[in-house]
Amino acid sequence: MIKVGIVGGTGYTGVELLRLLAKHPQVALQVITSRADAGTPVSQMFPSLRGLVDLTFVHPDQAYLEKCDLVFFATPNGIAMKQVRALLDAGVKVIDLAADFRIQDIALWEKWYGMRHECPDLVAEAVYGLPEVNRAQIKGARLVANPGCYPTAVQLGFLPLLESGAIEVDNLIADAKSGVSGAGRNAQLHTIFPESSDNFKAYGASGHRHLPEIKQGLARVADQQVGLVFVPHLTPMIRGIHATLYGKLKSDIDLQALYEQRYADELFVDVLPFGSHPETRSVRGSNHCRIALHRQQGSDTVVVLSVIDNLVKGAAGQAVHNMNIMFELPEDMALGIVPLLP
Amino acid sequence: MIKVGIVGGTGYTGVELLRLLAKHPQVALQVITSRADAGTPVSQMFPSLRGLVDLTFVHPDQAYLEKCDLVFFATPNGIAMKQVRALLDAGVKVIDLAADFRIQDIALWEKWYGMRHECPDLVAEAVYGLPEVNRAQIKGARLVANPGCYPTAVQLGFLPLLESGAIEVDNLIADAKSGVSGAGRNAQLHTIFPESSDNFKAYGASGHRHLPEIKQGLARVADQQVGLVFVPHLTPMIRGIHATLYGKLKSDIDLQALYEQRYADELFVDVLPFGSHPETRSVRGSNHCRIALHRQQGSDTVVVLSVIDNLVKGAAGQAVHNMNIMFELPEDMALGIVPLLP
Amino acid sequence: MIKVGIVGGTGYTGVELLRLLAKHPQVALQVITSRADAGTPVSQMFPSLRGLVDLTFVHPDQAYLEKCDLVFFATPNGIAMKQVRALLDAGVKVIDLAADFRIQDIALWEKWYGMRHECPDLVAEAVYGLPEVNRAQIKGARLVANPGCYPTAVQLGFLPLLESGAIEVDNLIADAKSGVSGAGRNAQLHTIFPESSDNFKAYGASGHRHLPEIKQGLARVADQQVGLVFVPHLTPMIRGIHATLYGKLKSDIDLQALYEQRYADELFVDVLPFGSHPETRSVRGSNHCRIALHRQQGSDTVVVLSVIDNLVKGAAGQAVHNMNIMFELPEDMALGIVPLLP
Amino acid sequence: MIKVGIVGGTGYTGVELLRLLAKHPQVALQVITSRADAGTPVSQMFPSLRGLVDLTFVHPDQAYLEKCDLVFFATPNGIAMKQVRALLDAGVKVIDLAADFRIQDIALWEKWYGMRHECPDLVAEAVYGLPEVNRAQIKGARLVANPGCYPTAVQLGFLPLLESGAIEVDNLIADAKSGVSGAGRNAQLHTIFPESSDNFKAYGASGHRHLPEIKQGLARVADQQVGLVFVPHLTPMIRGIHATLYGKLKSDIDLQALYEQRYADELFVDVLPFGSHPETRSVRGSNHCRIALHRQQGSDTVVVLSVIDNLVKGAAGQAVHNMNIMFELPEDMALGIVPLLP
Repeated sequence: MIKVGIVGGTGYTGVELLRLLAKHPQVALQVITSRADAGTPVSQMFPSLRGLVDLTFVHPDQAYLEKCDLVFFATPNGIAMKQVRALLDAGVKVIDLAADFRIQDIALWEKWYGMRHECPDLVAEAVYGLPEVNRAQIKGARLVANPGCYPTAVQLGFLPLLESGAIEVDNLIADAKSGVSGAGRNAQLHTIFPESSDNFKAYGASGHRHLPEIKQGLARVADQQVGLVFVPHLTPMIRGIHATLYGKLKSDIDLQALYEQRYADELFVDVLPFGSHPETRSVRGSNHCRIALHRQQGSDTVVVLSVIDNLVKGAAGQAVHNMNIMFELPEDMALGIVPLLP
Repeated sequence: MIKVGIVGGTGYTGVELLRLLAKHPQVALQVITSRADAGTPVSQMFPSLRGLVDLTFVHPDQAYLEKCDLVFFATPNGIAMKQVRALLDAGVKVIDLAADFRIQDIALWEKWYGMRHECPDLVAEAVYGLPEVNRAQIKGARLVANPGCYPTAVQLGFLPLLESGAIEVDNLIADAKSGVSGAGRNAQLHTIFPESSDNFKAYGASGHRHLPEIKQGLARVADQQVGLVFVPHLTPMIRGIHATLYGKLKSDIDLQALYEQRYADELFVDVLPFGSHPETRSVRGSNHCRIALHRQQGSDTVVVLSVIDNLVKGAAGQAVHNMNIMFELPEDMALGIVPLLP
Repeated sequence: MIKVGIVGGTGYTGVELLRLLAKHPQVALQVITSRADAGTPVSQMFPSLRGLVDLTFVHPDQAYLEKCDLVFFATPNGIAMKQVRALLDAGVKVIDLAADFRIQDIALWEKWYGMRHECPDLVAEAVYGLPEVNRAQIKGARLVANPGCYPTAVQLGFLPLLESGAIEVDNLIADAKSGVSGAGRNAQLHTIFPESSDNFKAYGASGHRHLPEIKQGLARVADQQVGLVFVPHLTPMIRGIHATLYGKLKSDIDLQALYEQRYADELFVDVLPFGSHPETRSVRGSNHCRIALHRQQGSDTVVVLSVIDNLVKGAAGQAVHNMNIMFELPEDMALGIVPLLP
Repeated sequence: MIKVGIVGGTGYTGVELLRLLAKHPQVALQVITSRADAGTPVSQMFPSLRGLVDLTFVHPDQAYLEKCDLVFFATPNGIAMKQVRALLDAGVKVIDLAADFRIQDIALWEKWYGMRHECPDLVAEAVYGLPEVNRAQIKGARLVANPGCYPTAVQLGFLPLLESGAIEVDNLIADAKSGVSGAGRNAQLHTIFPESSDNFKAYGASGHRHLPEIKQGLARVADQQVGLVFVPHLTPMIRGIHATLYGKLKSDIDLQALYEQRYADELFVDVLPFGSHPETRSVRGSNHCRIALHRQQGSDTVVVLSVIDNLVKGAAGQAVHNMNIMFELPEDMALGIVPLLP
């Protein structure tokens, strides 16, 4: 059994980790921390977990995380970087679901996240936890930077086109739509129901933190810098991301075959028939990414539709996937959840 | 008083016309038809109109529409084209809220709408009812083709860029999102709440009927053919369209000034400060289009955000606006509705 | 023109007052205050009001409210009671949309609202602003206590039964459901979209602040104490209250006639045909209360369904109605808004 | 392995059975029928099941259901009663998720369901599949009538009070609220998103089909006729039922202890601490019923809050539970799903 700790378990990625790990046959949940809610039983805060998780939130100072085999950080940005070194030194593996270790260019990270990075050397060591790209490195990693939700949907959508050199790299467009859980489990005025329901809006259209992460990932697979415009939107649903991607084809190729071959061995990427329209609800609660391809008549632009559940494949599910790889378990252990439809 | 008739009043554009016209000081509603619901009081079908509209739906055969000064067609596509000639001959003006008279290229129309057009000569006469472009012609028109909802939001968003030649015309992208009322007041499986709520999807990504209408409108103002990829999406809200538009700038220009000057005299187009994010709810129930501009760092792509209420500026409100122009009334008569927020 | 001031204009009752008053032909909006947002243009916070309201929020200390003819308090509970005396002394009329003056029993108020009341004598003077009950007193009032949202829906629903003595008074049940805007425009965890959407729950089922207000109102019309169980629920919609009321009939009477006669002269209470099911959306954005009656086979229990828009008839609309009465204007001035459906 | 067939698999109870049975270690899905969609792969209609269910819908005539060990009917009312006898004769066990075998009084059933019953003798044999009441009979049953969704939530809520004689039986009130999936996966005007979203309404307030089913069940445990008023409502969420129940206490008893003892051994009934407010989302996707008790100050009315997922505990989950009992499997096999929150 893997002894697992969770730091910062009161947010949506935290409760989602609990949902998945509660049924993981190889995981023994040891501890879950919360500074604000120490002493509160987990199942009191999340009645959905009554009878399933009998832990109580503990203060970080009493967590004894170094006794774990693996610690997940489900914290705000900037927390993990303060604590990871001690854990690694104690032989604990770490998966950070926040952004602290996602961007290799420290100056760029500091600009977008507005703080000083406290362990640049560990950024260099960290493996970017997108299994479809970095499976081998994840297997041997001590520290995994779990990708952001938008970056997961966008990268998986563009990947085959960029790896194969099928599209121009300087003119990519990613128009992405997220459910409101992407904004976190926090009291914020703009996400209360009367403000965010029956409404649709873009945000960060002049620049969003996930832009450099996506560009870094796409540049790696394209082996050159890419030009990308990324516009995120908020849509009135709880879970789900729908990325609509546009790229200019250099030549006529069999797009469907390209995608099917690229993802043939991937358990969690599902390529739909050409011309399909994947719905976010088709992955609600599951770790899948579903992708479909379109090309409008007379156009040299390929349109890629890519959907994930932002809390699963875009966060906790991918983190468990990474854990399974790191501990050489079957990749889909505890991830065989059937999407909840309707 | 203008004697007004409505053909096909049981759909959303019909009830929206009623909402607006019930308070129009220069309109006397004469008749509203429905084949299926003849004999039903309007306020029984729409309790929101109790005490405001005391008409009863009448069968089209008993409508005596030729006694009206103006008839609105709020019908499915293909109905108006069968009845308009007789009305025009009787001296009645007509505004068609469906697509019968929107596209000048008859063959193109027949291809997208899957039927034979019955009066191509009237298509040639019809004026495309986008007041911000065709005000003068609308004033003298007998027959107005009211624009589609997506085409309204997309054209108003691209207009200044194309008129001024600021962007390349062969590479336009319109990623548009609509509330579910855009699918009409019909029993359809895919729009029932459990199918369309808490869900997001694209549709028509390989080709949608509004594509040729948008391209025709943009080509007129650009004075040349345009290349456009148009992808509509369904978002779980009742009303509203959010169009996110992408165009490649030819050179650096003052985008904000361009838009503010273009729409300075337009009552129903509101240009927000540069870098704003218009929300669909900011126009809920009103006839406004709100637009904002963005440009991401280092990018030569302009991002235009354009929002309307699909049932008002995208349908009934624009129709009333056209009526006001045709009858030389103040353009905003009965259209001074404050958006409902929250 | 009535010179009007609004204290606390950044909440939902505040913006709703603005929506209504912006179109009121006899109102000149003088000032709107906000401690936190002083200096912010109203239309920047509420883009729906762009071009309609050009005021800027001012700090309460610079508001010069004593120059107004009427001041609305759209503040949290406990604010109005500190400021009303000075305004009344200056000859300003006041309508308080909060709870400070609703409950005549000061000890009871202090128990439920958890604070000391600062002007019990003004409570005694205040008129409870339910026009359907207190029209005459409202006309001459200096200070009106605008009813709560639940109390409005519940009282209007029970009124004819209690006035006529048709039901037992010791066994009333009010099962009420509210949209989330009833919780206010505040950053609260339990009202963010992912927490309150696709969910239904009761709250305050062991006791809610509106219980004593409702009991006081019902006791007045019944002319004796009443026994009431009141359970409010939160339902995932923005606006609207649906009260389902249960009372035990003493004898067989013509329920429908009772209600139609009681409300025959009321502009804003609409009695639907017996056995109807009023929908909250049928009053969305309007000042109407719609009521329908039911009786199940073999049962001596009458079921009353009563719906209002909590922000209009349940708050700002009723306040404007009260203002119209106080200033002897037509009761429906600026309240002729057609409900927004769909 | 139990060979299982599903008749009528294209509705919500059908797809929900598939979601659960796809992961049931003792079930071999043999066949799923659909008259309208024969030939369509299940995973094409429900992309959420891609890779999990590789069956294709077959026409009922080619289903060979008699080769199954168990057949679920997830059909409209009136279908199962035509086919069950042949299956029973062939030694197949049957669980009917529709209403054909729920009501013992044939005349009453015929009145509410508007059709002639075709096999009254089998109604007499059928066991009402509420495990918390009829566990022993279910174990030996050939034919189980799976309870309705409202009846499940209401009966479990009232059960301990009636069994113990704690409340008066002639004055029960059940005010119930259901998500829209309760109306089924059918194209209906009143359930499309623009009609049912941002809206709340009662329906069937003068009488609903579930009323006689509930009364029958409550009468059995009370051992006498009961007087019940039952008002269902539609709330804009996908899944979930919230029943708010009112009963008049005969004397002071320890309500909490009563409920905790009654359900101590029940895996799927969870009694929350006194004064709690169970949310429907706390059981989203799971087979649990969560119950909480309230009593308002000075009142002799007990308020019971009871929530279930209408498609799981209110339909498919309870059916699988019944199957597990019939085949002497662990009761929670394949039902250990963690609720999806948020």
